[in-house]
Amino acid sequence: MSWPRNTPEPEVTPEQRVEWQQRFGESDRALGFEISKDFKPFAQINDMFTRAFWDPAIKSADSDGFFASYRMGSEPRRGQGFSQKDFALRNASWVISDIISNRGNDTGMREGFQSWIAEDTPVAPTQVEVPDAAAQTAEIKRIAKMFGADLVGVTEVDERWHYSSRVDTRDLTQADNTLPAGITHVIVMAHAMDFDLVETYPSALAGASTGREYSHEAAIVIQVATYIRNLGYQAVASMNDTALVIPYAIKAGLGEYGRNQMVLTPEFGPRVRFSKIFTSLPLVNDQPKPLGMTTYCHSCTKCADACPPKALPKGPPEYGADSPSTIKGVKKWSANCEKCFGYWAKLKTDCAICMRVCPFNRTYDSWSDRVWRKLATGRGRKLAQWWENRNGSRERLKPADWWAKP
Amino acid sequence: MSWPRNTPEPEVTPEQRVEWQQRFGESDRALGFEISKDFKPFAQINDMFTRAFWDPAIKSADSDGFFASYRMGSEPRRGQGFSQKDFALRNASWVISDIISNRGNDTGMREGFQSWIAEDTPVAPTQVEVPDAAAQTAEIKRIAKMFGADLVGVTEVDERWHYSSRVDTRDLTQADNTLPAGITHVIVMAHAMDFDLVETYPSALAGASTGREYSHEAAIVIQVATYIRNLGYQAVASMNDTALVIPYAIKAGLGEYGRNQMVLTPEFGPRVRFSKIFTSLPLVNDQPKPLGMTTYCHSCTKCADACPPKALPKGPPEYGADSPSTIKGVKKWSANCEKCFGYWAKLKTDCAICMRVCPFNRTYDSWSDRVWRKLATGRGRKLAQWWENRNGSRERLKPADWWAKP
Repeated sequence: MSWPRNTPEPEVTPEQRVEWQQRFGESDRALGFEISKDFKPFAQINDMFTRAFWDPAIKSADSDGFFASYRMGSEPRRGQGFSQKDFALRNASWVISDIISNRGNDTGMREGFQSWIAEDTPVAPTQVEVPDAAAQTAEIKRIAKMFGADLVGVTEVDERWHYSSRVDTRDLTQADNTLPAGITHVIVMAHAMDFDLVETYPSALAGASTGREYSHEAAIVIQVATYIRNLGYQAVASMNDTALVIPYAIKAGLGEYGRNQMVLTPEFGPRVRFSKIFTSLPLVNDQPKPLGMTTYCHSCTKCADACPPKALPKGPPEYGADSPSTIKGVKKWSANCEKCFGYWAKLKTDCAICMRVCPFNRTYDSWSDRVWRKLATGRGRKLAQWWENRNGSRERLKPADWWAKP
Repeated sequence: MSWPRNTPEPEVTPEQRVEWQQRFGESDRALGFEISKDFKPFAQINDMFTRAFWDPAIKSADSDGFFASYRMGSEPRRGQGFSQKDFALRNASWVISDIISNRGNDTGMREGFQSWIAEDTPVAPTQVEVPDAAAQTAEIKRIAKMFGADLVGVTEVDERWHYSSRVDTRDLTQADNTLPAGITHVIVMAHAMDFDLVETYPSALAGASTGREYSHEAAIVIQVATYIRNLGYQAVASMNDTALVIPYAIKAGLGEYGRNQMVLTPEFGPRVRFSKIFTSLPLVNDQPKPLGMTTYCHSCTKCADACPPKALPKGPPEYGADSPSTIKGVKKWSANCEKCFGYWAKLKTDCAICMRVCPFNRTYDSWSDRVWRKLATGRGRKLAQWWENRNGSRERLKPADWWAKP
């Protein structure tokens, strides 16, 4: 089932709002989610990467060049961090993700981005018994880590965050985004990006940290979902497709929302990517507790200060959403996506300066990082800010210095 | 170009032998390779996994069930280590490798097994300059490790170890196995298998350690080869296809040959899998030096003693090769492949008891492991053997105990 891209979103019915309030009101309050009467699920046709193909306000020679550069097709050669070698490494890092996402070209399913990942194995006809959902939850987290996930959480299905439609990439129409029946839980996995590569943002070289994790997560979600299907339960492997992962990651207890529009995790700060699996496997949901990181963001504007196109807000969270690419009716820090992506298009690569300069972007390998986190997320917040500021601005690692490392 | 599977191998000409002697004689001596006048390159049609599809001496209900079990198709349910859950995990671990190897079904190219991995990216038209091959070698090793390789070595192309023909999997005929022009070097990568899973051999569960590394190596060889192609040089990603990796791993200095027919590495003992990339990138070959591990094998028969079908030799290396699946004219320890694979087929999974019980199979995380290695590979060999034997036989980790781990 598909329909034109300009089809307006169906209105949310009052009955639907009441039901959502009953099901999610309490956990929303616990998580600090503030959702207004204007809330509407997001249509994927309006995300920046999709608009760059159909919206004349976004599509440009720069945006076309941005996408072409991922096929070594528009190599800007603008010096350090943007040479053929830098693009060569970035594009190589993406290739496993590319193999998966290109499989469904003929059917308009860009797996992992504009469609969930197609099943590689049928659901086994015999179901393994699950007498203890808590033990099953511990086991699936262990298996996900064995396959390479860095963090794993479990939460309930919450269809408010599912795209109201997906995108058929053949003609950029909207297409049905209904998951198979019986899905009850979402397994959310975090994949840590390489610290040193991230230190070189902005550069094509730094984009290798992004592509490497997309390739990792493609492999890991497929392996974990296949394991669950082999046990006789439904499991749908998902990357950026199907639903917004940020609310799911927060609901699964993996982190808190930050000013830079990223989920801040205690283990890696914002230096992670997320993937997810929708499943019917009996599991127990994680119970998130406050982590103290969003509170820090309220009195820190380092990400917004460092953003070259000034795309990040310096004020408090707002409902304001004057862009079709921002979800309606959710009070939060929202980037100006047009400015943000416009800068990416000029660079011909992704930018994550706002990830690099975030005070929570640390390896936490050192004693001092861990003390800082303890202070920053509790009563010592101001001391932590003084300490962070005392070290001055975080310098970018020069791409040439990254290449020169042993 | 393809020809029937029963086509005899072309004879090696005297001129070819002289050329090989001139090119490789010295390094063969340094490595301890002993090669007779009967030597012939190996035809892949004769490997056990291929013979299981065409040779009535090998193909059986058991071997058919072995392959079917990898699609959850013949689940034996023979208790601990062989339950649905064990097969579910093993098969999930293989799935990325399966996705790659199934891509070429229509053209008879089982990528990674009976054909090299097809290019996902063209060779860039502009070549990055390589002014310093030694620096380029260090860089490519670093990049391979960034993508997840555990060990990396470089050696020269040595066509003696290339399959004289590959297998067209549509009709099991022989097919041309000639690499693209200009290949000068082989990058050999080792991928360490999970220690705890290997401790459960024999079991379907243990097979997850094999599948996980095949999936890892598929991703890693493709990423590294794509990087090299993006630099403007030829690179062909390869797993078990195209050439025997054991002599290449030894030539690249990654380890020594063991009685269990595996390459023993100082870092992981035999607990590794190998992949390779054939490339025209200017590189410097590694210079292997004696590691003392093969010497240990001469006075140790733990692998042979532990082999249920008695497939491993207890005597010295021999030229004897009465099986079509054993390469002719190479003096070495050779398994009876028919007995070995017959046992796998009965188990419906791979067996690597000979890897598990090898005294070199250690994590080397502990001080005592490292002291043992120092002794075992030097003048303290007898003391190391006494020490190893004093600890008694290595007990298999029960699959139920693996599953019960936190």
